[in-house]
Amino acid sequence: MTSQRLGCLFGLGVGPGDPELITVKAARLLAACPVVAYPAAEGGDSFARRIVADLIRPDQREIAIAVPMDVARDPAQEVYDAAARQIGSELQAGNDVALLCQGDPFFYGSFMYVFGRLAEHFPVEVVPGVSSMMACAARLGMPLAAREDVLTVVPATLPEAALEARLATTDAAAIYKLGRHVQKVRAVLRRLDLLDHARYVERATLAEERRMPLTDAPDIAPYFALALVHRRGSALG
Amino acid sequence: MTSQRLGCLFGLGVGPGDPELITVKAARLLAACPVVAYPAAEGGDSFARRIVADLIRPDQREIAIAVPMDVARDPAQEVYDAAARQIGSELQAGNDVALLCQGDPFFYGSFMYVFGRLAEHFPVEVVPGVSSMMACAARLGMPLAAREDVLTVVPATLPEAALEARLATTDAAAIYKLGRHVQKVRAVLRRLDLLDHARYVERATLAEERRMPLTDAPDIAPYFALALVHRRGSALG
Repeated sequence: MTSQRLGCLFGLGVGPGDPELITVKAARLLAACPVVAYPAAEGGDSFARRIVADLIRPDQREIAIAVPMDVARDPAQEVYDAAARQIGSELQAGNDVALLCQGDPFFYGSFMYVFGRLAEHFPVEVVPGVSSMMACAARLGMPLAAREDVLTVVPATLPEAALEARLATTDAAAIYKLGRHVQKVRAVLRRLDLLDHARYVERATLAEERRMPLTDAPDIAPYFALALVHRRGSALG
Repeated sequence: MTSQRLGCLFGLGVGPGDPELITVKAARLLAACPVVAYPAAEGGDSFARRIVADLIRPDQREIAIAVPMDVARDPAQEVYDAAARQIGSELQAGNDVALLCQGDPFFYGSFMYVFGRLAEHFPVEVVPGVSSMMACAARLGMPLAAREDVLTVVPATLPEAALEARLATTDAAAIYKLGRHVQKVRAVLRRLDLLDHARYVERATLAEERRMPLTDAPDIAPYFALALVHRRGSALG
């Protein structure tokens, strides 16, 4: 006899880093799932798991998905194939699976690749989370967008000309994935006369958080550092 | 004798509508504040208050800020002046104030106008929240942005030519404040060959939520309805 009931895959946004920035809903569903999965760097460390470490119980089974964390243009398809198989077999057996996603599940996360493989076959519920863009704005005391502002979200990994084209006309921008691209981003913003308005945050909402003008930021930033800029200084300006 | 300790203003993102999409942190701080403030339509109804109604106790004092809810280009400065005075006198007396913000406090909210008036004079902490853009993506099962995607957030209230210029080159877009602008947005997306990829959500995460292709959406939408569109169909495409 196999189970009639399929398990549900819960894609849980766990927020930007502060464990208290998880939603009540994600915390409740995490507690109710017998299986907890999360992306992990190849060394095994998982930022998403670290955020909710205090909520995971010894009786919950864990699945670490070893995702290459560098700026690969192509996600490692075999990794997601294997993760989907492993998670799928839990769902097939009737076990609900919580898949932890730092920030929001559908905003530049790897969750979508597992979702894409399983959503046709199993029930899936996605629980949105607080994204790092909003967390950085809160920590900087810098309103992101007001009234008729256009906000553009760009990865710093884009070629310089593309970055410049996207930033030239926007009112506000969140520039993701700064990593090794800080000098390029500064050069673009300087040409657009926006550099004095750009602020930098790394590890937002964690004890190790650092905030500064982008002009003072390290040339090599953490991958998850980001810059916020508003043409008027802030949306209040 | 006046109190030496100033109260703290907490700008609390309460999320898109589902009461469980508040963060653990915002719920904790809300419970700890003797004063709770929120924007309210001129009739007195407050969406932000409704989201957290079950968390407000009779012993908490409430301050309703009567904000004009239509698409005024200029926020009603006198309203915010008066709200800042009322909240400021609580802070001056040493009382912490929770100011409720639907979605995220710094993402197209009215919180920033009170923040702008009080942040120089009193301690302020902003707690980011789940924004409706992420909630709509979750409810649609539509990943917003992946890898090197550029995401553009635009208010539908912009003039048609400006909307078209902003949407012409982006990979993905969230179009806010649809209200009376549905037909204009559809015309722009049709010219850009993006209309078939556009989806509509109103009252995301509430019991009254409605989701449909933007082609089927009502010509007059609620002010807080939004459309999501991705050039590839979704970020997974």
